[in-house]
Amino acid sequence: MSGFLSAHLNTLTEYVPGEQLQDRRYIKLNTNESPFPASEGVVAAVSGQTVRDLRLYPDTDCRLLIRTLADTYGVEPENVFVSNGSDDILNFAFMGYCGPDRPVLFPEVSYGFYQVYADLYRAPCRKIPMNPDFSIDPEKYMNAGCTVVIANPNAQTGIALPLADIERIAASNREHVVLVDEAYVDFGGESAVGLTKKYKNLLVCQTFSKSRSMAGARVGFAVADAELIADLNKIRYSTNPYNINSMTQAAGTAALKDAQYYEENCRKIVRTRAWTKAQLEALGFFVTDSSANFLLAGRGPVQGKTLYEKLREKAILVRHFSDPQLDDYVRITIGTQEQMQQVMDAVTEIVKGR
Amino acid sequence: MSGFLSAHLNTLTEYVPGEQLQDRRYIKLNTNESPFPASEGVVAAVSGQTVRDLRLYPDTDCRLLIRTLADTYGVEPENVFVSNGSDDILNFAFMGYCGPDRPVLFPEVSYGFYQVYADLYRAPCRKIPMNPDFSIDPEKYMNAGCTVVIANPNAQTGIALPLADIERIAASNREHVVLVDEAYVDFGGESAVGLTKKYKNLLVCQTFSKSRSMAGARVGFAVADAELIADLNKIRYSTNPYNINSMTQAAGTAALKDAQYYEENCRKIVRTRAWTKAQLEALGFFVTDSSANFLLAGRGPVQGKTLYEKLREKAILVRHFSDPQLDDYVRITIGTQEQMQQVMDAVTEIVKGR
Repeated sequence: MSGFLSAHLNTLTEYVPGEQLQDRRYIKLNTNESPFPASEGVVAAVSGQTVRDLRLYPDTDCRLLIRTLADTYGVEPENVFVSNGSDDILNFAFMGYCGPDRPVLFPEVSYGFYQVYADLYRAPCRKIPMNPDFSIDPEKYMNAGCTVVIANPNAQTGIALPLADIERIAASNREHVVLVDEAYVDFGGESAVGLTKKYKNLLVCQTFSKSRSMAGARVGFAVADAELIADLNKIRYSTNPYNINSMTQAAGTAALKDAQYYEENCRKIVRTRAWTKAQLEALGFFVTDSSANFLLAGRGPVQGKTLYEKLREKAILVRHFSDPQLDDYVRITIGTQEQMQQVMDAVTEIVKGR
Repeated sequence: MSGFLSAHLNTLTEYVPGEQLQDRRYIKLNTNESPFPASEGVVAAVSGQTVRDLRLYPDTDCRLLIRTLADTYGVEPENVFVSNGSDDILNFAFMGYCGPDRPVLFPEVSYGFYQVYADLYRAPCRKIPMNPDFSIDPEKYMNAGCTVVIANPNAQTGIALPLADIERIAASNREHVVLVDEAYVDFGGESAVGLTKKYKNLLVCQTFSKSRSMAGARVGFAVADAELIADLNKIRYSTNPYNINSMTQAAGTAALKDAQYYEENCRKIVRTRAWTKAQLEALGFFVTDSSANFLLAGRGPVQGKTLYEKLREKAILVRHFSDPQLDDYVRITIGTQEQMQQVMDAVTEIVKGR
């Protein structure tokens, strides 16, 4: 860093994304990407003409994409916000609703970026310990007296809270924003989008990066009461109003129209997830009851970090976290059935010490 | 806004982008876009396979794009930062180098977003009045004692400072960052990129939105000493590390290889700019000596706001600013020669009161 950077930013610990190794070809199961390509409707939407027209600024209001999202989720356009990936929404929400005098509460094991955003905006963190099986105790999120952030299904564990619990959390925290990060909801969670009509404090965000095979395009969206959406737009217009490029707007709109293709992909992943979980358990690993497109596995015959390293030697990339609570675990994205068979062959070899 | 939004953000005045009217077909000359399409190399780079591969996250480090930029500008990759449009870079620079105890100095007439960013990060502003012809007096930027931001060529006026003046400003402010915003440099300005090797406080940013016909793709880049670049990356990794999507990275890399096409487009715009300026002056308007892809014209036979409105009635969209200093002016983007002939026919009609 330079001597010019603000002292606060200088001391900040930034987020560490999953590795993007290019030294060889890996089965890449470390960042919860979809193994299935973007749909052919998306390919067609990013046409030669779309690219030639890049000379023009994108629609700052993302009108077509927002209208299509509103229709898809049964809400009004004024209830929808879109941004450059859902990290953007998290960033804006922490900027808007957290600060030195406005603490934030979230689970101790969850998406690592929550801590970074809290630090960035100098918000005190109240991190709620997990149950021993990594599930969340909803009672600990009631009457929090501050902004609440919950990933549902939760990041790293994949464990989902029932919608009734999310509703009780929203209802008991009406004086504060409850942000429900539903990045993984399409793989078996229950979405709280419908509750946003009832709870003015409920901000639900989702992404096209997982179930819609568009991590490379950067589209996140939020559904909430119109006033929360206006807050997020105010922040967007005060930082980077043209933040969603034209190609991504076209691709996102097209993806919503190819719902069947993406739903079938999700069903495949759910089936393969169940198969993989059973295989890992048969080898003696504890595996979370995941409703996401990944499994957290550990406490098995091979230590988590060792398993990560030995899989990497076999050109299979999974995620290992430095968090001490997760040291004995790996997080494995669910790929295709064929990929997961290769993974299980490799894990079996490692366990048997060959 | 909701009652949840922080008091500071609630009172902020956000940026107002140029209009994007869709009620009829306009000759759109209000946001300094290029009249020429993205190059065919760019079209080829965003292939069907690029779109199918959107299932994968983009390269957070933008390695290929950064290496190509470094080669193009004769610097090392560690001296290059890329982001989601140059607004992103301005946002990060104000976040990193300005604040309540760290004022910022910029010209009174310039890019309107500087004021918004200063307000967002609560940095006191020192706005330097323009010379009567809207030029900048470089002496007023020497030994500023705070962060300095200069658009060169300047926004709204198009007037460029000679490189020697930029160097004197950088040299006299070694204790503070001097940000030179070169969004319009390819239309006749002198770039300060070469000076970044000599001045560790000099941050030069440019965009693909104007001369490279890629406003819709969102690519900005900065060239500076490696430590300043590390600052910007730290902020990016603390807010939105995946902020440049894969299609845009591919398009940006391809655009750099089609340099000849874009240079020829710039030459056409420079020629048409000279023709348009002469025409407007012949009608009695004062026109700035612009080195950018637009002209600021006013003090003529028709008042600025009236000219804007009457052109709009004729389906020609130019920019009128609410800033009282610019009330009698319009900013006209330079389109193709054919478009500017239509504009001058319209202006002539308006002036002659038909």
